[in-house]
Amino acid sequence: MKLTILGCYAATPRTLTNPTSQVLEIKNRLFLIDCGEGTQVQLRKNKIKFSKINHIFISHLHGDHLYGLIGTISTFSLLGRTTDLHIYGPKGIKELILLQLKLTESWTTYNLFFHELESKESEVIFEDNRVIVKTIPLKHRVYTNGYLFQEKPGERKLNVEAAQHYNIHTAYYQKIKNGGNVKLDDGTVIENEKLSFDPIPAMSYAFCSDTVYNEDVIPIIENADILYHESTFLESEAPLAQKTLHSTAKEAARIALKANVKHLVLGHYSTRYDGIERFKEEAEEIFPNVILGDDGLSFEF
Amino acid sequence: MKLTILGCYAATPRTLTNPTSQVLEIKNRLFLIDCGEGTQVQLRKNKIKFSKINHIFISHLHGDHLYGLIGTISTFSLLGRTTDLHIYGPKGIKELILLQLKLTESWTTYNLFFHELESKESEVIFEDNRVIVKTIPLKHRVYTNGYLFQEKPGERKLNVEAAQHYNIHTAYYQKIKNGGNVKLDDGTVIENEKLSFDPIPAMSYAFCSDTVYNEDVIPIIENADILYHESTFLESEAPLAQKTLHSTAKEAARIALKANVKHLVLGHYSTRYDGIERFKEEAEEIFPNVILGDDGLSFEF
Repeated sequence: MKLTILGCYAATPRTLTNPTSQVLEIKNRLFLIDCGEGTQVQLRKNKIKFSKINHIFISHLHGDHLYGLIGTISTFSLLGRTTDLHIYGPKGIKELILLQLKLTESWTTYNLFFHELESKESEVIFEDNRVIVKTIPLKHRVYTNGYLFQEKPGERKLNVEAAQHYNIHTAYYQKIKNGGNVKLDDGTVIENEKLSFDPIPAMSYAFCSDTVYNEDVIPIIENADILYHESTFLESEAPLAQKTLHSTAKEAARIALKANVKHLVLGHYSTRYDGIERFKEEAEEIFPNVILGDDGLSFEF
Repeated sequence: MKLTILGCYAATPRTLTNPTSQVLEIKNRLFLIDCGEGTQVQLRKNKIKFSKINHIFISHLHGDHLYGLIGTISTFSLLGRTTDLHIYGPKGIKELILLQLKLTESWTTYNLFFHELESKESEVIFEDNRVIVKTIPLKHRVYTNGYLFQEKPGERKLNVEAAQHYNIHTAYYQKIKNGGNVKLDDGTVIENEKLSFDPIPAMSYAFCSDTVYNEDVIPIIENADILYHESTFLESEAPLAQKTLHSTAKEAARIALKANVKHLVLGHYSTRYDGIERFKEEAEEIFPNVILGDDGLSFEF
């Protein structure tokens, strides 16, 4: 997987910082997560191919996660896109986009599919042969979901030496890769573990923004490789975080610790602070593996 | 008057260019004209005070003139604005903004007044003691208006020497400034022109975008000091301009010439061209006083 953070600051776009948007690449598929104003320009700056984005996930209908969506949809049309585009987000998103397209008299050159979400329970909203995406219900001022992206485990790796040792015909190799045991001519059953190695571990990425500190997410995101968790405020503003249903850097770290994730990425910083280094320092008091998210940051895992 | 061009490129925001938006300052009032995506960031970059903008004029409901409006309105709220904001634009703009505010559950901290336009005739839509604003009906693919901003003429300037020569009492001075004649004690009437000078000429600015070449605008914008006229295409794309109801640089110049304006500002350039210098060259073949509009350009007149 490869994560590119296009924007990770709260509230309003500014000269040097951008509202929330991210691109997650999994096995050559690009998933766009949230779409604050200016996202299409950030996509250009980060040299992300518009045509490879087929799925857009919107966490909630606040402007700093949403206001770039209609422009992105329109630009896709201006570029002559023909591939289907799927949009996942809270109920209302379809009405909002369709009204804008209607008033601008600018229909899309491609099919636009809306997947409106209303459930308060985690649910699978996308699945293909390689990736599965689930919602992570969050607690914010409006209906909000985070998203969990999981690679499906690949095939097991054949232990050729072992297979040859048992004199197994190559016709059985695919069965072994699929996890099956093999029965020899003499009736002996060879367990799969003796004939194959574990597959490359399937990676997972959990996006949690915006949300107050909420332990309900832990069973859903448990053991994720990367957790992006909003940290709008520092500890000094903890009461404000509680009031506005946002989290502090320490609270993000507490969730990361309890969910046993490998790495925590911070973001959604309030623009009231002069720098963001302090967010990392505060989170690291709780959890060791902290990555300070920032606009333009991109990394593979 | 002072014009600041925040963006003057067609279609989509890009890394280095912005869709249409301008700020016109007249006697300490700021008028925002059109509001493409990213306008609020351009306002910041150009150090324009958000709090001084009380009137926003939207020409038409195409994205590159509109998609920054909801973000601008929302940011005004986040900054705690309390002053009334007036929005002028085609019918539908109110429904569009209100639906977005409803879905984001983010009401404004200030009163928002919508002035929806439907007329196909030029009409006065704003007037105070110093400025008058009229619509300029344009021909484009959707209902579109340009806007004519006119300063009201100031008082005439007293010719103190002449007034003293005729021994006129200072009590009459205001009457003279207002354009009145003065009757002396002996019954002689002194004409105002002998007692005063013409006021500083009232300036006018005409904004015409987007539109096909349309001579109907000429009587409305005649003698304007500055005409901003869209020039989406060069002469080589004249058929495309006709088809998409846009203008070429030469057509913009032809309107400027026929309307006898003092200066023509070009803009709304298609992003298909590598540079914009050629627009000026082509327009100057028709009309001499051409200013090549560009993002960040600001000038007083």
